[in-house]
Amino acid sequence: MFGNFIENVRLISPLVHNITNYVTVNDCANILLAAGASPIMADDIEEAADITSICSALNINIGTLNQNTIPAMFAAGKKANELFHPVILDPVGAGASALRTSTAKKLMEEIKFDVIRGNSSEIKTLAAIGGSTKGVDAAETDVVSEETLTAAIAFVKAYAEQMGTIVAVTGAIDIVGDKDTAYVIRNGRPEMGKITGTGCMLTCLIAAFLSANPQEKLKAAAAAVCAMGLAGEIAYKRLTTADGNATYRSYIIDAIYNLDGETLDKGARYAIR
Amino acid sequence: MFGNFIENVRLISPLVHNITNYVTVNDCANILLAAGASPIMADDIEEAADITSICSALNINIGTLNQNTIPAMFAAGKKANELFHPVILDPVGAGASALRTSTAKKLMEEIKFDVIRGNSSEIKTLAAIGGSTKGVDAAETDVVSEETLTAAIAFVKAYAEQMGTIVAVTGAIDIVGDKDTAYVIRNGRPEMGKITGTGCMLTCLIAAFLSANPQEKLKAAAAAVCAMGLAGEIAYKRLTTADGNATYRSYIIDAIYNLDGETLDKGARYAIR
Amino acid sequence: MFGNFIENVRLISPLVHNITNYVTVNDCANILLAAGASPIMADDIEEAADITSICSALNINIGTLNQNTIPAMFAAGKKANELFHPVILDPVGAGASALRTSTAKKLMEEIKFDVIRGNSSEIKTLAAIGGSTKGVDAAETDVVSEETLTAAIAFVKAYAEQMGTIVAVTGAIDIVGDKDTAYVIRNGRPEMGKITGTGCMLTCLIAAFLSANPQEKLKAAAAAVCAMGLAGEIAYKRLTTADGNATYRSYIIDAIYNLDGETLDKGARYAIR
Repeated sequence: MFGNFIENVRLISPLVHNITNYVTVNDCANILLAAGASPIMADDIEEAADITSICSALNINIGTLNQNTIPAMFAAGKKANELFHPVILDPVGAGASALRTSTAKKLMEEIKFDVIRGNSSEIKTLAAIGGSTKGVDAAETDVVSEETLTAAIAFVKAYAEQMGTIVAVTGAIDIVGDKDTAYVIRNGRPEMGKITGTGCMLTCLIAAFLSANPQEKLKAAAAAVCAMGLAGEIAYKRLTTADGNATYRSYIIDAIYNLDGETLDKGARYAIR
Repeated sequence: MFGNFIENVRLISPLVHNITNYVTVNDCANILLAAGASPIMADDIEEAADITSICSALNINIGTLNQNTIPAMFAAGKKANELFHPVILDPVGAGASALRTSTAKKLMEEIKFDVIRGNSSEIKTLAAIGGSTKGVDAAETDVVSEETLTAAIAFVKAYAEQMGTIVAVTGAIDIVGDKDTAYVIRNGRPEMGKITGTGCMLTCLIAAFLSANPQEKLKAAAAAVCAMGLAGEIAYKRLTTADGNATYRSYIIDAIYNLDGETLDKGARYAIR
Repeated sequence: MFGNFIENVRLISPLVHNITNYVTVNDCANILLAAGASPIMADDIEEAADITSICSALNINIGTLNQNTIPAMFAAGKKANELFHPVILDPVGAGASALRTSTAKKLMEEIKFDVIRGNSSEIKTLAAIGGSTKGVDAAETDVVSEETLTAAIAFVKAYAEQMGTIVAVTGAIDIVGDKDTAYVIRNGRPEMGKITGTGCMLTCLIAAFLSANPQEKLKAAAAAVCAMGLAGEIAYKRLTTADGNATYRSYIIDAIYNLDGETLDKGARYAIR
């Protein structure tokens, strides 16, 4: 079922505007190209809205936000809303500093996001239901497990309803939901957490998938999450005992590059709740 | 014939100042090291001209230009002109926003560039003969093909004459020309377009090649274009069916690392027009 | 002896705050993850001290310093001192511009660093005993050789005493010393100098090693230097004739990912002087 979603990305080749951090930006650009999309990065206030206008989706990632790029995030987000482009938020490190938490919340107040994707600590922080922080990684106490899954699904649906958006909480188990429906996704490998930027890259893919599949945004977001996890599984099988997180990173992008609809259909592991 | 040009880079090891984007900057640094040059990145107005002074070439790339780095581009460019260092412009995304187009044009008014390298959409935009945009990639309507080659060569020569510089329009077919002579280069692989930064990396190589071969700038630029394309061909042969654009990126840099003069001589495919 | 130091990093998983350059930042994040630590990058003055507060070590790298990030370096450094966190300085390109030299010196005046790690040209510049510059690489005239080793050890000890810090001068031969004791380390490969960021990555590892081994800072710094050099040796053995600096970079990070205490114990090559 999800196979068509990646094939549409390859067919339409959406141009995705990314205002993102400088840590993982190269991997973000390469994974968008790997999926068949086209990336552009632009974060100066003098051009942010212009660049949004020529693109068909916007990805805002606060991983290394600063006083110059924050205004560009707002300008681009508002322009994207005007043009009805999909807009995705990756609230990297929300909870780690007041600036990150407040910027993410203010972005959510002033901009209508189609999807908010973060780890469990980030999303809990934004929903103000607690949430610890271990910097940009999820705190162990926040991680979604089999024991906490039912509660986590209810939380995702409630928060999605409250914010009027799709919420994607990703980790060992991923939950992608709107107010009514949640996809519980079990693709991926724990070793993906040892690579910087797997979350950022996933958010890029979500932007591309929504742009190419605008009629079915929830499924498109879930398909992107499955695709990223499946790429992690495929890449993992290539690793030798001498390989580590650097080679694994390249192989994951390579796996997206080679991922076709049929493979995604067969490999996607999810339940609808 | 071009073999000496890369050997001179390895012999002289020029220090190249790069004011460049944060998307592809790591690959830019590594490909300069791979070619035997030495990179330094510095984009603050307080040090830009100082850094230019200790280097022997300057590469200005507007891929993520902003209000802080634009003044540094002008200061560094003027200093490089004073010192008669080769200065190269990579007008990434010219046409994608007013800021990019106007900054690139203003840079070309105030700084004497030895080479301007871009894709066909970027160069056409700057020459104000149309030019569409697909962000940082060339629009299909602008691509140089066998059918449009003769006209494209004439355009490159005319624009080179107008601007008093060498113009390099790169894509499936590359044209590197001054007002009198154009090298039409057929090295490379289409899959290189699926890697972010192959253009940026090429511009770095051009800077290094000109710095190490200052008496023959046109040939040096053409040699750099052949070297990058040939590296793309050599790297492509190493790929397995599981590999994609991430591994391909590493292999291209590796191929530059291992490229000797003899291999470049044998592998360069070009015609003089 | 050094094996415990990396095992403690994996056990404790320190969160390391990095204010660093955008050239090598991705490799810095991945090598910290590879070692078992957790990275966060944050360089805006509005959050720098907050981020420092939730971390357990701070790494300041001036590789692409600018007017916005310099104040963040001071704010974060002072907060780290208040909290008695290990603070490490990587004075990238000190000597290459007045801004770099003066910023590094001022940082050293106002912040108490536990370790200063640089190449021989950078450290000599800071100690004002000469020091040439080749941008971010050491000038040949400054390199530590067998002939200059005894003098270099004496210099490291004297400068360490003067500054009240551990000094790490790294290159073909590494010297890590305080006023009394110097570790002379002979791990590593000359080809590591052809990869951008091996120095930056090493500084990250030093921060993580000190954080996880706070009672033995000198040994922890020396252990990190051995680990990085050993990773370079292990990675080098995997290279084929087609590989170059890009693949080598990935393999070095991979080697850190797989490095256990026993391997580090066996592979560390050092003398105490």
